[in-house]
Amino acid sequence: MNTEFSSKAVLEAIRSVVQSDNTSISLHEPKLAGNEWTYVKECLDTGWVSSVGKFVDRFEDDLAAYTGAKRAIAVVNGTAALHICLILSGVVPGDEVLIPALTFIATANAVSYCGAVPHFIDSEEKTLGVDPGKLAAYLEDIAEQRQDGCYNRITGRRIKTLVPMHTFGHPLDIEPLLKICADFRIELVEDAAESFGSFYKGRHTGTFGRLAALSFNGNKIMTTGGGGAILTDDEELGRLAKHLTTTAKIPHRWEFNHDMIGYNYRLPNINAALGCAQLEQLSAFLDNKRALAGRYAQAFSEVPGVRFIREPEYCRSNYWLNAIILDEDFRNMRDEILEVTNSAGIMTRPAWTLMHRLPMFTDCPHMNLTISKSLVRRLVNIPSSAGLV
Amino acid sequence: MNTEFSSKAVLEAIRSVVQSDNTSISLHEPKLAGNEWTYVKECLDTGWVSSVGKFVDRFEDDLAAYTGAKRAIAVVNGTAALHICLILSGVVPGDEVLIPALTFIATANAVSYCGAVPHFIDSEEKTLGVDPGKLAAYLEDIAEQRQDGCYNRITGRRIKTLVPMHTFGHPLDIEPLLKICADFRIELVEDAAESFGSFYKGRHTGTFGRLAALSFNGNKIMTTGGGGAILTDDEELGRLAKHLTTTAKIPHRWEFNHDMIGYNYRLPNINAALGCAQLEQLSAFLDNKRALAGRYAQAFSEVPGVRFIREPEYCRSNYWLNAIILDEDFRNMRDEILEVTNSAGIMTRPAWTLMHRLPMFTDCPHMNLTISKSLVRRLVNIPSSAGLV
Repeated sequence: MNTEFSSKAVLEAIRSVVQSDNTSISLHEPKLAGNEWTYVKECLDTGWVSSVGKFVDRFEDDLAAYTGAKRAIAVVNGTAALHICLILSGVVPGDEVLIPALTFIATANAVSYCGAVPHFIDSEEKTLGVDPGKLAAYLEDIAEQRQDGCYNRITGRRIKTLVPMHTFGHPLDIEPLLKICADFRIELVEDAAESFGSFYKGRHTGTFGRLAALSFNGNKIMTTGGGGAILTDDEELGRLAKHLTTTAKIPHRWEFNHDMIGYNYRLPNINAALGCAQLEQLSAFLDNKRALAGRYAQAFSEVPGVRFIREPEYCRSNYWLNAIILDEDFRNMRDEILEVTNSAGIMTRPAWTLMHRLPMFTDCPHMNLTISKSLVRRLVNIPSSAGLV
Repeated sequence: MNTEFSSKAVLEAIRSVVQSDNTSISLHEPKLAGNEWTYVKECLDTGWVSSVGKFVDRFEDDLAAYTGAKRAIAVVNGTAALHICLILSGVVPGDEVLIPALTFIATANAVSYCGAVPHFIDSEEKTLGVDPGKLAAYLEDIAEQRQDGCYNRITGRRIKTLVPMHTFGHPLDIEPLLKICADFRIELVEDAAESFGSFYKGRHTGTFGRLAALSFNGNKIMTTGGGGAILTDDEELGRLAKHLTTTAKIPHRWEFNHDMIGYNYRLPNINAALGCAQLEQLSAFLDNKRALAGRYAQAFSEVPGVRFIREPEYCRSNYWLNAIILDEDFRNMRDEILEVTNSAGIMTRPAWTLMHRLPMFTDCPHMNLTISKSLVRRLVNIPSSAGLV
């Protein structure tokens, strides 16, 4: 047992869990061990590989049933899902959208696609997600109510929507955010791209906001190759989401009429077929990933100066991407750990560069981001594939 | 042999070619008769279904080799390809982009995604594509050269790019358009979504403009489920196209830095695997489709009042979507033909509603569209699957 912190101790703790000596271990890879072949072959045999076919409908029904959302709309990826959610939440060019500084680039890009401006918010250490207390205090300071919504007094722009993101699959504290949004008249779109299979107080993440985005990229807990989905309980928003993601074509036997600027965001049937097969195995993936997290927690309990990140107490996390966080005393050790582990063939990575530091977003407004900065300095993601158990 | 025009005569001519009495015949369905299963199974067996994998690289190399373009960048669909081509041609918000009124909605939508305004141009009957003579005369009338490009004197907006589209796979007359664009300092992006496998004077469509968009949607001559590609001979534009379609991430062992507003437009590996298998069969598909077109030409030569559309003389067309066109005398018969054929289980459809008639584009500028209007009134697409031969 190590009694001192070192990058070697971190490497050994990971190795003790993933039980690898020589082979290289990726950060997250898919497990295709169910009916993937059967369903994909059915697409090939019938020729239904593209825009129509039974697997898209089935996948949407299965997603709605699993999450408890009234409607799920399958789309080409999580970024596309976020884009449509933002449009349907009422974001128009010139609006501001509150998003965490600590997120994947897709959240900020989707805001840009709407011609809106991302406004970066700090996160809290216990959930890695938007800090409700800090956000409320900030809005008290900068927000002003006008007839058509909440405005940023400093920039003069309307603050239309908040997009909290469930980081690495851990549910953030969504209830107080819902209250803040109601109080300040701000829409809430959940970025649940990473949290498929994660629950907050027994309810699936992505069913709290008016709209939510899921992702089934190859690095997610389950995959459709590329893919995502929009969740909503609002039937009319669900209808509009389907319409907007399928070029806004008006149904007709032969005429091609479209009534809005639409998008070609529908998920191909062959990718939906993969999704149906993966979803059948989700419960096993979750068991595996939670078991893996348990082993990591045990291994890192014996490494001083580093903490394995556990699910918040009121939540059940999918443990999509496992992470460790260094004590403040060792905050300069992150890059050495990345170097030592990656050089040893065990893939690790830091959190994303904070959004306000990227060149295209440096002029965007942001609040004090003390916690996000501290988290990025100290956080390392470690191998998380379901197949590691 | 019929001596009078009737919708029944049209139905019988189609039936004589597709040789169906009862079963329903779709407009265009894919043929998956090669290595699709082998390649897709390899993706499933290795777990490489998503954003990385050898089939994306191979598909891009195969596309470049087949078309003769220096670079091909595989993307999620033809709309995404058009969007990126427009951005890379230099279109910025507020610009105008010249596109045919007679096109699929994707051409106009992609312009809108750039914050630009589509400006609708007439087509000519012999190619169904942009009429070079009419366009030149129109630009003489409305265009004005300023320091940073060609301006529309009437709207005051810059005319940045022309996007001619090779309708139903038939190559339009691209050479005079290249000259017009050079003369008026307008960029040329080819919408070759429908013309993969079509050649103009021996050179593949999509290799004349600085950039071009292909589509591999399920209804195209070959399919990747959903998919498309960008073609260019410009190495730097090719590099930028890859960068922009993969979230503009800067390569690094572990850091997540992005230097532009990017897009999640990359084609998943499993879809690229389909594409590799389909491309191996393209030559057979082309033979089948040209044989089918030959039979239609023969059958319709005996029906008065209607003409089967053949490839322009200097071209070799993929005959993606076969079409007949009614003489002016019978221009009111289109809907009856659509009704009679579709009711008989033979899927036919009219051309797209002209873009300037759709509610979101009614305020956009357009030239006199006499020919496009006449074409839409008289044109009917008829079953075109490679499997019909």
